[in-house]
Amino acid sequence: MATAHQAPGETRPGGRTARTRQAVLTAVFAELDDGGFASLTMEKVAQRSGIHVATLYRRWRSVEGLVCELLTDLSGSVPLPDNGNLPDDLRALAHSITAFYGEGRISRLIEAVVSAAARDPQAAAVLRSFFEERLPLAGRMVERAVERGELPPETDPIEVMSALGAPFYYRILIARRPVDAALADSTATAVWAAARAGAYAGTAHGPVDDATGP
Amino acid sequence: MATAHQAPGETRPGGRTARTRQAVLTAVFAELDDGGFASLTMEKVAQRSGIHVATLYRRWRSVEGLVCELLTDLSGSVPLPDNGNLPDDLRALAHSITAFYGEGRISRLIEAVVSAAARDPQAAAVLRSFFEERLPLAGRMVERAVERGELPPETDPIEVMSALGAPFYYRILIARRPVDAALADSTATAVWAAARAGAYAGTAHGPVDDATGP
Repeated sequence: MATAHQAPGETRPGGRTARTRQAVLTAVFAELDDGGFASLTMEKVAQRSGIHVATLYRRWRSVEGLVCELLTDLSGSVPLPDNGNLPDDLRALAHSITAFYGEGRISRLIEAVVSAAARDPQAAAVLRSFFEERLPLAGRMVERAVERGELPPETDPIEVMSALGAPFYYRILIARRPVDAALADSTATAVWAAARAGAYAGTAHGPVDDATGP
Repeated sequence: MATAHQAPGETRPGGRTARTRQAVLTAVFAELDDGGFASLTMEKVAQRSGIHVATLYRRWRSVEGLVCELLTDLSGSVPLPDNGNLPDDLRALAHSITAFYGEGRISRLIEAVVSAAARDPQAAAVLRSFFEERLPLAGRMVERAVERGELPPETDPIEVMSALGAPFYYRILIARRPVDAALADSTATAVWAAARAGAYAGTAHGPVDDATGP
């Protein structure tokens, strides 16, 4: 996207730009803790981080831009497993996601990002591009499973990874209860069984459409 | 909840209260079409519906209260199937959900409700109670499947119905793409395979926990 947003990776680690970015993201996280997304302002982040508010507007454009970059930054800490078999990889990733969103302030952050996306096309684009970057990386575990013959060859890695993530976002955003280890186990078991049954192997395995709409 | 919110069913169909409610919900839907949730105000709804703004505040408290009631109202139109076997019921419901959220203004509505819940505990409570009411109704198809011996006896109907809904909310809120028939088919196939494998049958089928957190 050709926008004023600072994409991850555009900063040089250790440089002044990277230090500014880190100070700002730390301040955003602290402000979210204090007052949530509703009361987050560029001015508060400027005050807490010691970075000029003009710099914030120039690089991140809006509070939406700030929370999206914070999510991108934090999610880099979720490891992508490679245990040699897909059931173990799915369970490991599901438990890592649980640990990640098990922190209340991170589940509030995803709420803030989704809210931002609902109101601001720019934030929506950032959210979409975040998952478009992240899912193919995670999907490598599915490609390896297909290579090992564990799954049908036409299995779509993005669909499998979306299915692994979906129950966590449902739990946080819709059911509005904390994620837990039982959800991780249930989700990993479910995705494995579904992938084996060809649910993510596209039209080749899809049942014929019928007229069941309301 | 002992709040100023008007719960569904508290209005008498055909009465003045019901007519007021219908006029207000119609106006809310039209306002969301015009300007989205970001620009929705009680005053605009009052003007469009012809209902005094004081009445709106008394009965719905906030724009969050209004959009939550609208969602409740609309979702009553999604039929709960009973075809005599769970795979068909799951597919029918998945396609009904697709038809429901396939309307852009309804998927924008769920976005608005989730955003409202992120900022307003009252809206969060309404969202949670909506799903707490709706899921057990939908879950009857799972209870019937257990009675027919299609699924393990300890299968949790709420978990199965949550798993059926999750991919649609993921698609709308996270992936930010339209729902479609392929998602309905994939989801129905996935939930059936997962439920058969005992993924929603609680701890009895859950694998032993290990240390996979980051």
